Amino acid sequence: MSGRPKEYCGIFGIYGHADAGKLTYFGLYALQHRGQESAGIVVGNGSEVRQHIGMGLVSEVFDDRSLADLPGHLAIGHVRYSTTGSSLFKNAQPFLIEHGRRSLAIGHNGNLVNAARLRRELESKGHIFQTTMDSEVFLHLMVPFDTEEALEDALIHSLAQVEGAYSIVLMTKKTLVGARDPHGFRPLCLGKLNGAYVLASETCALDLVEAEYIRDIEPGEIVLIDDDGLRSIKPFPEVQGALCIFEYIYFARPDSDIFGQNVYEVRKRQGERLAAEFQMDVDLIMPFPDSGNYAALGYAQNSGIPFEMGVIRNHYIGRTFIQPSQFMREFGVRVKLNPVKSLLRGKRVLVVEDSIIRGTTTRTRINTLRNAGAREVHMLVSCPPHRYPCYYGIDFSSRGELIAAGHSVDEIGAYIGLDSLGYLSLDGLIGATQMNRERFCLACFDGNYPTEVCEEFSKYCLEGIQLAEP
Amino acid sequence: MSGRPKEYCGIFGIYGHADAGKLTYFGLYALQHRGQESAGIVVGNGSEVRQHIGMGLVSEVFDDRSLADLPGHLAIGHVRYSTTGSSLFKNAQPFLIEHGRRSLAIGHNGNLVNAARLRRELESKGHIFQTTMDSEVFLHLMVPFDTEEALEDALIHSLAQVEGAYSIVLMTKKTLVGARDPHGFRPLCLGKLNGAYVLASETCALDLVEAEYIRDIEPGEIVLIDDDGLRSIKPFPEVQGALCIFEYIYFARPDSDIFGQNVYEVRKRQGERLAAEFQMDVDLIMPFPDSGNYAALGYAQNSGIPFEMGVIRNHYIGRTFIQPSQFMREFGVRVKLNPVKSLLRGKRVLVVEDSIIRGTTTRTRINTLRNAGAREVHMLVSCPPHRYPCYYGIDFSSRGELIAAGHSVDEIGAYIGLDSLGYLSLDGLIGATQMNRERFCLACFDGNYPTEVCEEFSKYCLEGIQLAEP
Amino acid sequence: MSGRPKEYCGIFGIYGHADAGKLTYFGLYALQHRGQESAGIVVGNGSEVRQHIGMGLVSEVFDDRSLADLPGHLAIGHVRYSTTGSSLFKNAQPFLIEHGRRSLAIGHNGNLVNAARLRRELESKGHIFQTTMDSEVFLHLMVPFDTEEALEDALIHSLAQVEGAYSIVLMTKKTLVGARDPHGFRPLCLGKLNGAYVLASETCALDLVEAEYIRDIEPGEIVLIDDDGLRSIKPFPEVQGALCIFEYIYFARPDSDIFGQNVYEVRKRQGERLAAEFQMDVDLIMPFPDSGNYAALGYAQNSGIPFEMGVIRNHYIGRTFIQPSQFMREFGVRVKLNPVKSLLRGKRVLVVEDSIIRGTTTRTRINTLRNAGAREVHMLVSCPPHRYPCYYGIDFSSRGELIAAGHSVDEIGAYIGLDSLGYLSLDGLIGATQMNRERFCLACFDGNYPTEVCEEFSKYCLEGIQLAEP
Amino acid sequence: MSGRPKEYCGIFGIYGHADAGKLTYFGLYALQHRGQESAGIVVGNGSEVRQHIGMGLVSEVFDDRSLADLPGHLAIGHVRYSTTGSSLFKNAQPFLIEHGRRSLAIGHNGNLVNAARLRRELESKGHIFQTTMDSEVFLHLMVPFDTEEALEDALIHSLAQVEGAYSIVLMTKKTLVGARDPHGFRPLCLGKLNGAYVLASETCALDLVEAEYIRDIEPGEIVLIDDDGLRSIKPFPEVQGALCIFEYIYFARPDSDIFGQNVYEVRKRQGERLAAEFQMDVDLIMPFPDSGNYAALGYAQNSGIPFEMGVIRNHYIGRTFIQPSQFMREFGVRVKLNPVKSLLRGKRVLVVEDSIIRGTTTRTRINTLRNAGAREVHMLVSCPPHRYPCYYGIDFSSRGELIAAGHSVDEIGAYIGLDSLGYLSLDGLIGATQMNRERFCLACFDGNYPTEVCEEFSKYCLEGIQLAEP
Repeated sequence: MSGRPKEYCGIFGIYGHADAGKLTYFGLYALQHRGQESAGIVVGNGSEVRQHIGMGLVSEVFDDRSLADLPGHLAIGHVRYSTTGSSLFKNAQPFLIEHGRRSLAIGHNGNLVNAARLRRELESKGHIFQTTMDSEVFLHLMVPFDTEEALEDALIHSLAQVEGAYSIVLMTKKTLVGARDPHGFRPLCLGKLNGAYVLASETCALDLVEAEYIRDIEPGEIVLIDDDGLRSIKPFPEVQGALCIFEYIYFARPDSDIFGQNVYEVRKRQGERLAAEFQMDVDLIMPFPDSGNYAALGYAQNSGIPFEMGVIRNHYIGRTFIQPSQFMREFGVRVKLNPVKSLLRGKRVLVVEDSIIRGTTTRTRINTLRNAGAREVHMLVSCPPHRYPCYYGIDFSSRGELIAAGHSVDEIGAYIGLDSLGYLSLDGLIGATQMNRERFCLACFDGNYPTEVCEEFSKYCLEGIQLAEP
Repeated sequence: MSGRPKEYCGIFGIYGHADAGKLTYFGLYALQHRGQESAGIVVGNGSEVRQHIGMGLVSEVFDDRSLADLPGHLAIGHVRYSTTGSSLFKNAQPFLIEHGRRSLAIGHNGNLVNAARLRRELESKGHIFQTTMDSEVFLHLMVPFDTEEALEDALIHSLAQVEGAYSIVLMTKKTLVGARDPHGFRPLCLGKLNGAYVLASETCALDLVEAEYIRDIEPGEIVLIDDDGLRSIKPFPEVQGALCIFEYIYFARPDSDIFGQNVYEVRKRQGERLAAEFQMDVDLIMPFPDSGNYAALGYAQNSGIPFEMGVIRNHYIGRTFIQPSQFMREFGVRVKLNPVKSLLRGKRVLVVEDSIIRGTTTRTRINTLRNAGAREVHMLVSCPPHRYPCYYGIDFSSRGELIAAGHSVDEIGAYIGLDSLGYLSLDGLIGATQMNRERFCLACFDGNYPTEVCEEFSKYCLEGIQLAEP
Repeated sequence: MSGRPKEYCGIFGIYGHADAGKLTYFGLYALQHRGQESAGIVVGNGSEVRQHIGMGLVSEVFDDRSLADLPGHLAIGHVRYSTTGSSLFKNAQPFLIEHGRRSLAIGHNGNLVNAARLRRELESKGHIFQTTMDSEVFLHLMVPFDTEEALEDALIHSLAQVEGAYSIVLMTKKTLVGARDPHGFRPLCLGKLNGAYVLASETCALDLVEAEYIRDIEPGEIVLIDDDGLRSIKPFPEVQGALCIFEYIYFARPDSDIFGQNVYEVRKRQGERLAAEFQMDVDLIMPFPDSGNYAALGYAQNSGIPFEMGVIRNHYIGRTFIQPSQFMREFGVRVKLNPVKSLLRGKRVLVVEDSIIRGTTTRTRINTLRNAGAREVHMLVSCPPHRYPCYYGIDFSSRGELIAAGHSVDEIGAYIGLDSLGYLSLDGLIGATQMNRERFCLACFDGNYPTEVCEEFSKYCLEGIQLAEP
Repeated sequence: MSGRPKEYCGIFGIYGHADAGKLTYFGLYALQHRGQESAGIVVGNGSEVRQHIGMGLVSEVFDDRSLADLPGHLAIGHVRYSTTGSSLFKNAQPFLIEHGRRSLAIGHNGNLVNAARLRRELESKGHIFQTTMDSEVFLHLMVPFDTEEALEDALIHSLAQVEGAYSIVLMTKKTLVGARDPHGFRPLCLGKLNGAYVLASETCALDLVEAEYIRDIEPGEIVLIDDDGLRSIKPFPEVQGALCIFEYIYFARPDSDIFGQNVYEVRKRQGERLAAEFQMDVDLIMPFPDSGNYAALGYAQNSGIPFEMGVIRNHYIGRTFIQPSQFMREFGVRVKLNPVKSLLRGKRVLVVEDSIIRGTTTRTRINTLRNAGAREVHMLVSCPPHRYPCYYGIDFSSRGELIAAGHSVDEIGAYIGLDSLGYLSLDGLIGATQMNRERFCLACFDGNYPTEVCEEFSKYCLEGIQLAEP
């Protein structure tokens, strides 16, 4: 098990379309914000299965030739969050195994909390793991059931043992499977495109391929799609819901519907709630694009204070950006977001942000506003302070990285260099979702984790200690 | 002379900084929106001159190694607009010649209208041209003056003969030169960074390198910068101003000051004028990011109609985007800009755009709004209709490409599929700049060209005929 | 199990040198003729194991950076024969697994004849294979023994079950292992470099790293090398020898000693035997470089007929050679080997070749000699006709590919376009080795296979049918 | 003028074949040994001219796409010797200019001795040079004659002024030109392929494209080939011949005929002469492949001493070869040429070499023979000692680099570590060519230069001083 047990990811699956591989490529394009480290597609035509994966963006991994090499009516795809190091090629998904006459491929979004223990048990039985991903455990647990007929049993056997967050797309030579863990941490939705079924992390991927949104896969649900159509099973006892509220705050695309709500609108209502909780005497409101755009709009429309685009985004930042010398302070920030001096000079500015994790980037950005001549700089954050790490797939897992874990709001404001700082209340946040509090995982705010977290994993995360590699 | 006599470009120069090459790299980063085809830097240390140029973005052309190979205190840089074809490598700038013991390099923004004639004359005298760029003419005209002392004479001799639009940065082994044509079509500003002088197309490049803005280079002015400081000459008779108003409308970055006005604010005032000229009964206002952002904001703030971000931009569009099959209409558009269905469904939508050139892209975008459920779609354009080609460096040179050259506003609206379409009046546009009408070139709107346009060139442009290569 | 169960390969291992990774790189350079498809190195420092593998030549796969990333005192390396398709990346060796706290890596030269059956059995027990290589079976069979102390038991358990041809280098975090199958099909030699032990397919690799040749690893021998030195075990009953005689004829480098004989000298003696068996009345003897060089020299020195280099080799043939149009007959051959017209015109030419497999290339080459003006063209082959496929790692596995399997010598000569054709007798060939007939596998000549060949494998090979993928 | 005024090169031209570009590509493949730094082709179809050039081998510079982009019936091509530095891209040939409505392209083999002076004169008249190649002077001198009709005058005007060594292929939109300087330093031959005319540095290029050899272009001859056929002029007074004898010794391919003699046969006769001049009591004769192959054969056949291939060449040396550490002596040599120990151990070895320039490589190679166990190592060189630099295009231009310029034969033998060393006499060398002494340039042996060498150039060359760049 790797020392970095958390991943953002986007997944996509399709059954019953002659261009399954190409549509998956398009679907991954729409989900690219969920992962930029690697991209991959596995395609099947009923008898043969092909895979193409690579490091980088969808646009870098695939070209006309590689797509032409992926014929079939059944496909799954995966994008993964950017970490560093090409050595992680073997961790790119979808993960595919050929076992006997069977093929099994999986794309996984989420994080298992008992993967290390399961892996140890499997290795002691002779299993050889190929990657350091928790996702590999799913397939190892399915292997004893080695016929297509036993697929449902295999899935139940496997999913019954894993604990934590998972939305998965899985395929055999003949069947597409989608599943969400019983808590429902991560999203997964179902659509139809003419006769074909489509699975995707977010509805923006359905939009792009012109599939019609049908419904969300439910927490604990498994859907199996093959020539006989779609079959749904819910073999596990119902548990408390634990939808990841951070999907609304930051992670999902604003044009997606997630857990039944449009993300853009939830974010605007967060701004509306902020406006209700904090009346600010400022000259203008602005976001740092694109993170705070929608909450800022919501605040502006409910306060009468003008919304402005106070910093301009440079769209041409390449990957090989040369680091500036020390003598150029703030360059690394300003090359991406340059303040509009004429607009800011002498003004009292309110920045609306979606979240503050470490605070370092925010601090530098605020400084560029001051250098551009802003007289006052205030900030409102559209969620409560992040005080607890996430074990379910969001990348802020050690408390040492969370500025709010060890500092008061005033201390954070001072560190960042603000004239004032405010956070939306938890009630305000939940109110903005127009959903019941019980449906969400709010652990990053209140520390109440919906699942047990295995000892060593928890220790690792809470104390920020690097686990020794097994 | 190539059959494509027009170029967008950005230029940068610096004298007197130990990191001249690296700062030029940063400056070009800020000017990247002015040209994405090629990038180049020429650096000098007083005795030796080095060049690094390449096709692609600044981030693709340069890396740590190539920058480390560019030591010196004197540098110029250039970015050029994206056309297609790697065969155009030889046209990348800055253009450098070694003649006798002298080095001359130039970066040029603009377009000469008598370059073809000058080239013919020079060739008949035995000159051999290396490129198909009009910019090469500058240096050929300077060559007879072959000492450093005669530099001023050489510049006057050369600039006196060229006609049209140019802002240039030029360097010898010892001197940095900046110049604007007497009409002042293209911008060029002067800044200081500690003791170093900086020249740049736009002030956003000064911001990035933390140089202080001093003033614009004036129309017809030549500045020579060397160890003795800056010397300014204005050797040519004054002529009518012809600032390119399209820099305000579309081309320059909103965080730049151009011709003495902040671009962001001019654009907001264009929206304000639109609000005065057109009262619309709609539910929301939205731009297609980023082109209409600021005029839309200006309209919203002066009309009370809410500003929304009705389409979401995908920031991960790579260069090797696979073309979708025919069966997916609008995919190519929607992958870049996806409408937020929940927001648009059943709404009366006003789109504010900065300009309509051909109308084809706009048409497809409007269609995606309708497919997303918008009930009505109206559009206001923040400038008058473009009816005449530009000969001075903006890429809409044949009348055949300009939808407004042959169609009424109603016809255009019908073609695009709008419920209504309105254009800002010319007076409204000029009013938004808060400057005098006489200072601008408005030829693309009214056909009054500030210079003579040589016969063959004009014929080429007006009728859209491809000139035979000489 | 892939449809292509045969590989040429070269292997190298070293224990006890601070530059183990770099020396392995050098060793692979010397063994490059044994495989050009992929190259890889695994290095260990006692606690950590690193791997770098890639498709292509050693010089393409490694650079200064990748070598610098491979520190350690223990390393194994592998080169593999060129087939087509980058999709075979996962089949590149050395193959590395991390299991529990253990690391196991293997490089294999040879071919197992019971791998398909073993794999089926292992899969039925739940094992998941990562590749289509027979080599992976070795490690799966070792996994139940999961401590360093049990390494010897694990090796014996694993090697006792595999049947066929293998010379392997294998490493754990602390131990280097070398082994040859009991028949000894493929070579493996042992050397010392100061205090370090070196294993290599051929002695030319020892030469390059300046290691001293100690002895061959014996058939059926396993050597384990660690901090306590070298330990040799021979746990398996002795069986009949089956050294691959094709190593002498074609495969090994002439500057290597193989199975105790220098390859250059064996080949010269083949030529000497040819001279004894065939007296030819010709003007000159020539090889096609480099295949027949040494036998041709041997014939020339024992016949008095002059040796000439009648075709000139072009050393600059790149990988992206453009195929010539149909109108240029023989171009593809002549660009590599151009005949010296002045030398050949009007002459009676004797070509000495090492072998004829399909006959197609030979036919075209002979035609270029005739077009260059040769009056007569005769050929002598320095081994008997190849009539039977090889199941032990040499790439002529289907009888359909072997021209001698279905045609008489006269028919072959007529097909190739020769005035006469002769093959060395089997006795002559064995005599040239100066070793006992019983020590060799001669199956490709006489069809007597030293091992049982499992049903499906044999069927596949003999009839050239592509096995369905399992 | 660059500080490195000498180049090896190969040239090719063709007129009247529908696949002119592709055939030129093939021709350059055959001439690759004459230059590996860059390759280029210019093609014309009568109205348009296209160019493709690049750094690297022919196989690296061209692919199917670039060849498909070169349609036409008229083409010239060029390969250039490998120096270092990608910055020399602009010096790659053929060099092409577009001037007025005319196109002129040239490929040049040889070196001009008065290019620096001519360039200074042209620059003072306003000419701007694009490269640092002497070859560019040809075209500048032709420019004043700017019609197709004046081509012959232009050529005469240009060639009358340049002095030194040149064989050139040159083309306009309609005409192919070939020319050799009056001394005839460098080779150029003429062939026919069906109706098409072919020009090439060596006949091996004719062989490859299946063109029939017609004759050599004569010293001082200019041939113009167009739709009216071939026209030959010899406008310059006849001068003493100065064929480069080093083409026979080392440079040309052995399967070529040069200056009317087959190179392979000349080299064998050199070996025959060596055998007459030196009777050696040794066990075997060997070359270092491929330099001494043919002279060694010639010696062996005339002495009765056996010819052996005592070192084995590794054909897989890549460009990114990692430099070995200091601890591995001779590695860099041995990885390319490994001695066959079994053959050499205890033997008295005679190495036949074609030339010794600096002696450093030879010294290391001899050392590897001794380490392999050779008892005695003798060397015979198939030409006299090189005592004088070449100004005409061969890369040994400073006396400081020539070991024979300052040392006796005994001293050289001692430095290299030989038991004995002998050089072929000048008479022997000339005898081997079976041509008259007066026809050759023998300056590298006797210092009698056939042309005046301009002061600065000569000074540079004789004293090895790096000229300051102008």
